[in-house]
Amino acid sequence: MDVANINKLFEENLTVVNLGLESFAENLNNEGVKTVQVQWKPPAGGNMEIAELLDKMDSIKAKVDVDAANKKAAEIINNGKPTVVDISTAGKAIPGMRKNLFLHAGPPVEWERMSGPTRGAVIGGLVYEGLAGTYEEAEKMAASGEIDFEPCHHHATVGPMAGIVTYSMPVWVLENKAYGNKAYATLNEGLGKVLRYGAYGDDVIAKLKWMESDLAPILKAALKLHGELDMKNIIAQILQMGDEGHNRNRAGTSIVIRELAPYLVQLDVEKEKLVKVFEFLNANDHFFLNLSMPSAKCIIDAAAGIEGSTIVTTMARNGTDFGIRMSCTGDQWFTAPAPMVDGLYLPGYSADDAAPDIGDSTITETVGIGGFAMAAAPAIVKFVGGTPKDALNVTTRMYEITETENKIFQIPALDFRGTPTGIDVLKIIETGILPAVNTGIAHKKPGIGMVGAGLVKPPEKCFNDAFKAFVEKYS
Amino acid sequence: MDVANINKLFEENLTVVNLGLESFAENLNNEGVKTVQVQWKPPAGGNMEIAELLDKMDSIKAKVDVDAANKKAAEIINNGKPTVVDISTAGKAIPGMRKNLFLHAGPPVEWERMSGPTRGAVIGGLVYEGLAGTYEEAEKMAASGEIDFEPCHHHATVGPMAGIVTYSMPVWVLENKAYGNKAYATLNEGLGKVLRYGAYGDDVIAKLKWMESDLAPILKAALKLHGELDMKNIIAQILQMGDEGHNRNRAGTSIVIRELAPYLVQLDVEKEKLVKVFEFLNANDHFFLNLSMPSAKCIIDAAAGIEGSTIVTTMARNGTDFGIRMSCTGDQWFTAPAPMVDGLYLPGYSADDAAPDIGDSTITETVGIGGFAMAAAPAIVKFVGGTPKDALNVTTRMYEITETENKIFQIPALDFRGTPTGIDVLKIIETGILPAVNTGIAHKKPGIGMVGAGLVKPPEKCFNDAFKAFVEKYS
Repeated sequence: MDVANINKLFEENLTVVNLGLESFAENLNNEGVKTVQVQWKPPAGGNMEIAELLDKMDSIKAKVDVDAANKKAAEIINNGKPTVVDISTAGKAIPGMRKNLFLHAGPPVEWERMSGPTRGAVIGGLVYEGLAGTYEEAEKMAASGEIDFEPCHHHATVGPMAGIVTYSMPVWVLENKAYGNKAYATLNEGLGKVLRYGAYGDDVIAKLKWMESDLAPILKAALKLHGELDMKNIIAQILQMGDEGHNRNRAGTSIVIRELAPYLVQLDVEKEKLVKVFEFLNANDHFFLNLSMPSAKCIIDAAAGIEGSTIVTTMARNGTDFGIRMSCTGDQWFTAPAPMVDGLYLPGYSADDAAPDIGDSTITETVGIGGFAMAAAPAIVKFVGGTPKDALNVTTRMYEITETENKIFQIPALDFRGTPTGIDVLKIIETGILPAVNTGIAHKKPGIGMVGAGLVKPPEKCFNDAFKAFVEKYS
Repeated sequence: MDVANINKLFEENLTVVNLGLESFAENLNNEGVKTVQVQWKPPAGGNMEIAELLDKMDSIKAKVDVDAANKKAAEIINNGKPTVVDISTAGKAIPGMRKNLFLHAGPPVEWERMSGPTRGAVIGGLVYEGLAGTYEEAEKMAASGEIDFEPCHHHATVGPMAGIVTYSMPVWVLENKAYGNKAYATLNEGLGKVLRYGAYGDDVIAKLKWMESDLAPILKAALKLHGELDMKNIIAQILQMGDEGHNRNRAGTSIVIRELAPYLVQLDVEKEKLVKVFEFLNANDHFFLNLSMPSAKCIIDAAAGIEGSTIVTTMARNGTDFGIRMSCTGDQWFTAPAPMVDGLYLPGYSADDAAPDIGDSTITETVGIGGFAMAAAPAIVKFVGGTPKDALNVTTRMYEITETENKIFQIPALDFRGTPTGIDVLKIIETGILPAVNTGIAHKKPGIGMVGAGLVKPPEKCFNDAFKAFVEKYS
């Protein structure tokens, strides 16, 4: 560029593209110069250790076809065909389940480090199972070592919030018809004082008992008459009806009710019991969450253990730690302290009451629904905060860290574009963009329950550690 | 502007704002010049007669407070509280109903000028009522003068498509709790071969008989146990669930099912009958249309007859004529030939099979739902054609011809902005923008049924004539 051209440049109206510090652009804006701020972070967020490991990627890719491995994982996710095949109990259906085994959400955690809501749900679960007579006794028993604690995720299971699953609890049984693997989740208890938010009073236990004695057997019988539920089809529909399958499930719950209703009324069940079932379902818009979660679980489990694949196969929290797993490293967890949630609080509660991020429901985001499909559910912002524009932006941003666009789960408002699907650890490292998650918020103390809902950023460390393990494995 | 400045102008990159003929902008575009085409039409669309009448508006407004009158109409629409209070029959509930009176959609029309689908529905209705033994006999009777034909709208009633309402048909009874007026509509028959689309075979009649003998009494009894249905609340909800209440009603239908289910199962009814009711409801996503329509009707009827108000209180078609009514001119119709619909056709059908625009369902648009709320229902384009962006644009454009934004009906994707509500004839004349309507398409011959769905532009003449009547009345 010669001097004449440079002079010409200064005669023209400038439009400046700014990378990095936003204050540069702000100064120019103040002078009346048009600027475009690029949302850019240095690779690895400026983390030198990670940046150096990134330099090894060329030599790794010469040995391992990471792109092909991730394509394969994405294809498996897209092919997944989650189907509700039965309702059973945890004891009968879940592999490895036993009476003194309590499953919990998130990565492994021992009693000593357990969060308030998880402890509350364990205490309630012990009384529900009749293993303890009082809540005090239950607390002692939980601390005694008599009870084994293992993640739901180690048993093809997912649990919302505390995610406590005990032997007698009814569970949805799902099968991924494309790959044959199964997944399990309890039935959703509704909102308010419920075990999954760490509440454990007698009303909580009584409802769990009713779910075991009435709700589950009645739904199981209706499901048998109806036949299997094609969850892939139903989830595709709810994305056209303002749900995203994680914190907004009103359409999904409605579809399950209307699908099962003609069969529920065929059963030989006392009228009063049937009325209570319909009333419970109609009063509980989150009923569908415990179907969208195991749907996601059985889709993503088929993509685990692919050599060379950096696709995230688990994101889960226990109120103490946030943990992820990656396809190529199989069962290995990468954890970091669970973050706090930025959200809206129920009347009478504030951020001071909140437990850190908790629950397996982030499994939805791993298959392109939940936070990744928020653009399909703009009304969700009334529950989790923000504006509809934010919801749209969240989805749009997630395309940058995902391997593919979903073939079946589509967003009408984005011209039926497939949802961003298959979270790639490598892309997270390269872009510095973290997966978007929306979630409920539990009280930090045992025995209380839900206090709000909001958005949360997973800890960078989980993804950095997964990346380090990947580099170590393939260097 | 001196010569130096003009020369400077030609040195700069031009951005041209073009009004009027789009070809000017296209030529510039071809030369690489950026252009912005302004969607502008001359006042009254260049119609000299109307333009001259527009000149009288200042003197009219000096005598009549049109703005205040339209504000009052808008307030009445916003205050409306449509509520389902009962299910009855047309003969018992609708004022002025008698055995030889057949109500039809749209403005008045005699047998000789009736469209194919309307004739088909009349023939079916005569056999359904037992007034004729065969379809041939029915056709003769319809032409004989023995049967009186009047618009649904003259009886506080609305009917989708042909809109034929006969004495024995069950009807929803709605009350506008804010103003005490009532509205009526039949129960929706489902899709496929149905009377409202002009089909009249024995299967059509058998279904109508079942609706009379089983469906309506069962729903009536459940409704009585449940209590009144607050339609304002339900319509607000469905706009957050991807429905717009005219051609997309999946969420609305789902909500009605889940609301009534706990009461349906309490009834003393044979299981088989209850099963059939639930199956029918679950298989018919348009069931809610016959609730959104009378909801709109009882909202807007309260805004009729306001001195000086140019708000549209009726838009309706009978497959022959499109007719509107305006608040200040009360019961007077302004009609023009019904236009053809631009839409998507069912397999095996094309535009050659289509009847002109038909049905009272355009009542939804008069209160800010239906076509006016399409931005809330982007998935509707799979049914009526176009893209989600078109759906958004339709709603956005309607703000230019409406008096207010709805206080309760909101569009999440537009940051919960109230839907464009209260169509103003004056604004239509001034802007040249016509109300957006989406609709089903009936076969032009009697006896066949639905062939598609799409978008339609009401004839300009209706609004021009209403405006002329307004000027004449107040000059």
